[in-house]
Amino acid sequence: MSNVYLNGEIIPHSQAKISAFDRGFLFADGIYEVVPIYNGMPFLFTAHMQRLDRSLREVGIPQTLNHADWRAIITQLNSAEPLENSVLYIQITRGSEFPRNHLPSANLTPTVMATLSPFPPPAGAADAVKVALLEDIRWLRCDIKSVSLLGNIMLKQQAQALGAVEPILHRAGRITEGASSNYFVVRDGALYTAPNDALILPGITREHVLKLAREHDIEVHEKAFSVAELYSADECFLCSSTREIMPVGYVDEHQIGNGQVGPITQMLIDLFRQSRPNCA
Amino acid sequence: MSNVYLNGEIIPHSQAKISAFDRGFLFADGIYEVVPIYNGMPFLFTAHMQRLDRSLREVGIPQTLNHADWRAIITQLNSAEPLENSVLYIQITRGSEFPRNHLPSANLTPTVMATLSPFPPPAGAADAVKVALLEDIRWLRCDIKSVSLLGNIMLKQQAQALGAVEPILHRAGRITEGASSNYFVVRDGALYTAPNDALILPGITREHVLKLAREHDIEVHEKAFSVAELYSADECFLCSSTREIMPVGYVDEHQIGNGQVGPITQMLIDLFRQSRPNCA
Repeated sequence: MSNVYLNGEIIPHSQAKISAFDRGFLFADGIYEVVPIYNGMPFLFTAHMQRLDRSLREVGIPQTLNHADWRAIITQLNSAEPLENSVLYIQITRGSEFPRNHLPSANLTPTVMATLSPFPPPAGAADAVKVALLEDIRWLRCDIKSVSLLGNIMLKQQAQALGAVEPILHRAGRITEGASSNYFVVRDGALYTAPNDALILPGITREHVLKLAREHDIEVHEKAFSVAELYSADECFLCSSTREIMPVGYVDEHQIGNGQVGPITQMLIDLFRQSRPNCA
Repeated sequence: MSNVYLNGEIIPHSQAKISAFDRGFLFADGIYEVVPIYNGMPFLFTAHMQRLDRSLREVGIPQTLNHADWRAIITQLNSAEPLENSVLYIQITRGSEFPRNHLPSANLTPTVMATLSPFPPPAGAADAVKVALLEDIRWLRCDIKSVSLLGNIMLKQQAQALGAVEPILHRAGRITEGASSNYFVVRDGALYTAPNDALILPGITREHVLKLAREHDIEVHEKAFSVAELYSADECFLCSSTREIMPVGYVDEHQIGNGQVGPITQMLIDLFRQSRPNCA
């Protein structure tokens, strides 16, 4: 997919240019959202849009488009180049202003961009992956889905260098989340995940997993777990909008459970796939 | 000044456009530097360039321009629109890539931009200002001068809303720095400032102030001070490349010393002005 929505227009990505004085470029003064679209249907759309609105409010960027506008933009992007399954990326920054100044002027016009990219939904048997335990060096407002992501990028690069697909981050020994994912462990049949506070992104997939678990009588605890509790867990998985539920077999060289996909993880993968809009 | 150096060309700022898929825009994957230029002479140029090189190394962006190249770019920008006193802003990002992906491809071409802006060097009597004590919510690599600045912007906005010119940040009661400045206090004739670790930017002006103090037999301690030690200090000031040394009279409603410019602060202001290249 190579078209981009930029400030009201649909244009080829090679023509999508922003001012070098956009505050998104100069100060990471912007937020984003990622919405999976299955079989043409945005999944958990309202939850994603509510989180987008919350991110805007938290950083004080005005909301210029409502949920219906976003549905129309998806339709526009999709009719330009139809895709069955795709991922909508939205980025909104505070706008551009010359000369550069830390404090923004009032009433800037936000920069709004969006793309649709091909998205092959996870299918078939899920393999257990390796993740890398790293110190969480990010800021203390990880609940805002901002583009101030250099820390996340550096952590992802470190994980990659360690042969891992994603970092699993801790602050003083308490697990927070990944660089673009939330983590769960299973202990004695119960599910544990870090609570929704300023140290983690309130993941839409995380919330959906919790809902599926509760509906199927799996005990859930939104309670931070320690590195020791991670190492001795029966099962572990990460989740995100594009990876859905991804089983974790190893944290560095530490095997989690039997290093394979655990029964509760498999049950949640099955429930998740049944819950998503019908797709190939 | 309205010209911009962008990837080898000097162009009007209104034409300075970057790809919406620049990693600086999508991920804050870039660094910057600010160099004051007095009377046509970049001040502490080598120190600024060494910090720029260090920032690039720390985030793994290749260095494509050397110090002589930067001197030539300053000359080019300045000859297009001569300014006596100016500030050079440099920003370098990892480059652009479509589609968006957290992990960068190898061998991207960095995006390099620079501007010169008018800079009136502080002159005349310095007034003591008010700053606002706020919790330092930023990441744990503040030693990298990165564009991942949303936290700094939010803290500046909070300080402004409190009628302060700058935040003074603390982590668990220890003062770190400002949102774009370093802080000093004077206690019993000695100077204290937070040590150069990952929690503060290694300020070039901070280093210059320490050098001036040592040369004039002022005792200096690079040692974190607490909020209580700030409140009971004899004097306080902040410093940065563009504000030089700015006396602090109040932290919120707490008066520091007599709320005026203290004698050691005044001595350092005088020494600083004598040390800068001759300017109006």
